[in-house]
Amino acid sequence: MRITAKDLARQIGGEIEGDPSKELTGVAPLESAADGDISFIESERSSVQAQASKAGCLITPRNISLRDRTIIRVRNPRYAFARAIELFHPRPAAAPGIDPTAHLGKGVQIASDVHIGPQTVIGNGCCIGSHTAIGAGCVIGEDSILGEHCTIYPRVTLYPGVRIGSRVTVHSGCVIGSDGFGYVFEGGRYYKFPQVGTVEVGDDVEIGANSTVDRGALGATRIGRGTKIDNLVQIAHNVQIGENCVIASQTGISGSSVIEDNVVIAGQVGIGDHARVRKGAVLGGQCGILPHKSVRSGETVWGTPARPIREQLEQQALAARLPRLFEKVQSLLRSANQL
Amino acid sequence: MRITAKDLARQIGGEIEGDPSKELTGVAPLESAADGDISFIESERSSVQAQASKAGCLITPRNISLRDRTIIRVRNPRYAFARAIELFHPRPAAAPGIDPTAHLGKGVQIASDVHIGPQTVIGNGCCIGSHTAIGAGCVIGEDSILGEHCTIYPRVTLYPGVRIGSRVTVHSGCVIGSDGFGYVFEGGRYYKFPQVGTVEVGDDVEIGANSTVDRGALGATRIGRGTKIDNLVQIAHNVQIGENCVIASQTGISGSSVIEDNVVIAGQVGIGDHARVRKGAVLGGQCGILPHKSVRSGETVWGTPARPIREQLEQQALAARLPRLFEKVQSLLRSANQL
Amino acid sequence: MRITAKDLARQIGGEIEGDPSKELTGVAPLESAADGDISFIESERSSVQAQASKAGCLITPRNISLRDRTIIRVRNPRYAFARAIELFHPRPAAAPGIDPTAHLGKGVQIASDVHIGPQTVIGNGCCIGSHTAIGAGCVIGEDSILGEHCTIYPRVTLYPGVRIGSRVTVHSGCVIGSDGFGYVFEGGRYYKFPQVGTVEVGDDVEIGANSTVDRGALGATRIGRGTKIDNLVQIAHNVQIGENCVIASQTGISGSSVIEDNVVIAGQVGIGDHARVRKGAVLGGQCGILPHKSVRSGETVWGTPARPIREQLEQQALAARLPRLFEKVQSLLRSANQL
Repeated sequence: MRITAKDLARQIGGEIEGDPSKELTGVAPLESAADGDISFIESERSSVQAQASKAGCLITPRNISLRDRTIIRVRNPRYAFARAIELFHPRPAAAPGIDPTAHLGKGVQIASDVHIGPQTVIGNGCCIGSHTAIGAGCVIGEDSILGEHCTIYPRVTLYPGVRIGSRVTVHSGCVIGSDGFGYVFEGGRYYKFPQVGTVEVGDDVEIGANSTVDRGALGATRIGRGTKIDNLVQIAHNVQIGENCVIASQTGISGSSVIEDNVVIAGQVGIGDHARVRKGAVLGGQCGILPHKSVRSGETVWGTPARPIREQLEQQALAARLPRLFEKVQSLLRSANQL
Repeated sequence: MRITAKDLARQIGGEIEGDPSKELTGVAPLESAADGDISFIESERSSVQAQASKAGCLITPRNISLRDRTIIRVRNPRYAFARAIELFHPRPAAAPGIDPTAHLGKGVQIASDVHIGPQTVIGNGCCIGSHTAIGAGCVIGEDSILGEHCTIYPRVTLYPGVRIGSRVTVHSGCVIGSDGFGYVFEGGRYYKFPQVGTVEVGDDVEIGANSTVDRGALGATRIGRGTKIDNLVQIAHNVQIGENCVIASQTGISGSSVIEDNVVIAGQVGIGDHARVRKGAVLGGQCGILPHKSVRSGETVWGTPARPIREQLEQQALAARLPRLFEKVQSLLRSANQL
Repeated sequence: MRITAKDLARQIGGEIEGDPSKELTGVAPLESAADGDISFIESERSSVQAQASKAGCLITPRNISLRDRTIIRVRNPRYAFARAIELFHPRPAAAPGIDPTAHLGKGVQIASDVHIGPQTVIGNGCCIGSHTAIGAGCVIGEDSILGEHCTIYPRVTLYPGVRIGSRVTVHSGCVIGSDGFGYVFEGGRYYKFPQVGTVEVGDDVEIGANSTVDRGALGATRIGRGTKIDNLVQIAHNVQIGENCVIASQTGISGSSVIEDNVVIAGQVGIGDHARVRKGAVLGGQCGILPHKSVRSGETVWGTPARPIREQLEQQALAARLPRLFEKVQSLLRSANQL
């Protein structure tokens, strides 16, 4: 792959300055970029590193100037760079076709241009949309429905009756539709509360490796359109997640909690059952939302129990000053005793 | 499925009030129940919602009255409702039989009415009890023993020599019997401490999706009868878990720790090595038990390091009052200086 | 297996005292050892238990004496005991050979004495070193390279283009090379930032069950030689881990963070993106390193945000004394008002 700076600028919708005939052969981060590479900066703060970089061409914000460099100015440099990477590293589509070692149940409906990898098991009554690719070693439970243009990586499990939208990506090792964790204590032991609901995953969702999504007890666990979920995340039964949320690794969301649209959740966050996180809230890493609590729209919280981040930071700062406070009180007590 | 309120009351052992001939066709939570649905309440506090619900029949505690409603009074409404759900949503038993693509080793003993799904691999010398179902894509290591009426969902791995009781449920992606995490530092590098023990899982245990249970280094890691484990839980080598414990998602229990009977552990709890959690203790979400520490019988603890919950809550409350305390001390110092 | 104390001493390089002809038939921990068993102690502190143990032979440090016992004195008792266990429990090597149900792609290169288990899928262009064993139900993505003498347990997934060194152990359920968690917000939705890098795993690395290692966005995620990783650990894109690190269960390391050599990380630790943990640092259980922060070489830290452990313990101690501090200040205020 080889492209001129001018052609690249046209493809990513930017305005070129410098040498339009500059030949570009790859993409790289600023620090390791060589003369043939495209790289990018997101703000003026990186100008010095940009000037020092050996990159042959830099994608920059609109207000940037760099001396003696070939740059392409765009509105969203990270997005433009993502598109430049795609030009150089197109992800090959899985070849349509069903591997002879795949195991298809009865009444399975498979649309056109579907790929099903070796050793994969598709249960009775499943319905697979066109251009969807299911990797090797998957088990798709009966009566599950997958939309179009999905990518299901190897060794994913869907339990029966799960519904997956279109353009959904599910990474290896994910389990979707397993039983929720519900029991009734009766007669001196835990009796299983039936988990007979389902899971509904919206369009354009991505779910990371080895994450788990339990089916509803009654009704559905739902993940809204465009939401992105990282590795090793736990979504419990009847959780309702809105659209365009971002949920980082090892976070756990307990039963029946509601995560509204555009929420951002950092890693290792724990959310108790029946909590509600309102639109656009941000949950800091390792924080804990107690059961039945709610987080206000747009608020950033941190700590366990989670509080508005300003309060949390203030309290951390005061805690660091405790040794001095103890000394002061000690000195006051001595003075008082001398009076 | 269609049943009268009278027949339902007989099946779940309750006392009917209202219309015994009321026809019921489904189960649903209070808020979404329609006229043909059964729903339930657990206490008088939910009476208002119950009165407002459209449910055709309500399972209630014994002391409840609801005007103009058909109700079934029982001792344990949640348990009775669980049984009603089972009537409407019987989980189909896997059909007995061994899929022709399953791969059975030498000397495997398989009792009657066993189901083994496609692509599943059963190692040499395994012994599978009657009515046990092993889903697709599992790998059962050699010389493992499974009891009767177990449900092993697709894509579970047992390492060699694991012993599983009867009526055990293991969800997809679980790994049971992997090596414990033990090394000796010698000659400037970590030398693996052999992990040659095993895992013993008692009767009626359930283990959630993608959880991991390591084998003992020497001797066994044990999970006692009736204990329920959620998704993505880590049980390290030589951990001893008692009977009827409940362990929520993403909790980790380090090597050689002992969890006695009837312990309840919330999500994302961390337990250090060689700790002991005594009978009936309750560990709050995200709390941390330090290595070699113990939690008293019946005690509820929270925080890291975990303390009795009253102390922990008191300390949290005082921490929230720190800004005011700092102000007071400042004002006392000013007064003192003026004297 | 049966060995005299004298022969054992020769094999593990120790100095015998007591009965050299003592016959030994097994290994066991101190508390459960019987007359034919070898056990060990690591320091004088365990002398009383050692004296009380029924073990027929004890491996001890060099400075130890035990009355009327057969002991073998060595420099590193735990290491010597590990080697004794290996004598009694040799791990059988997987028999060389490729199972007929394995699925090999085009251009796969397989060295001598390789084992490939049933139902395993090896992608086009993979290269497998000699004496490497790949268990049942694995999926090895195309163009991946594995060195010699590796043990890949059943149901592991490698995405395409992953490079694994020699003598590497990967436990069941691991996913290596999955996409990093990177998106650009553009046009009201998250656009996937291409993840086109790779993963490089050094020699002698061990990775626990159900752990996940994401590929680099550009460039590689790296795990250095001799590093040991426990179960359910998350390694994000472009993380650089040095040599001989130990990373306990359920820890998560965010994107582009650097863990230098000989770092020890306890369980459930969270490390933000672009953090740096310098050589020989120790991170206490459940602690949190904030994004872009660094931990000093050799330092032990704890808490969230993580601080030097002495500060953290001091602050915890002061926090426990808060109730008394509040009382004192209250009493000072009363006195001040009376003046």
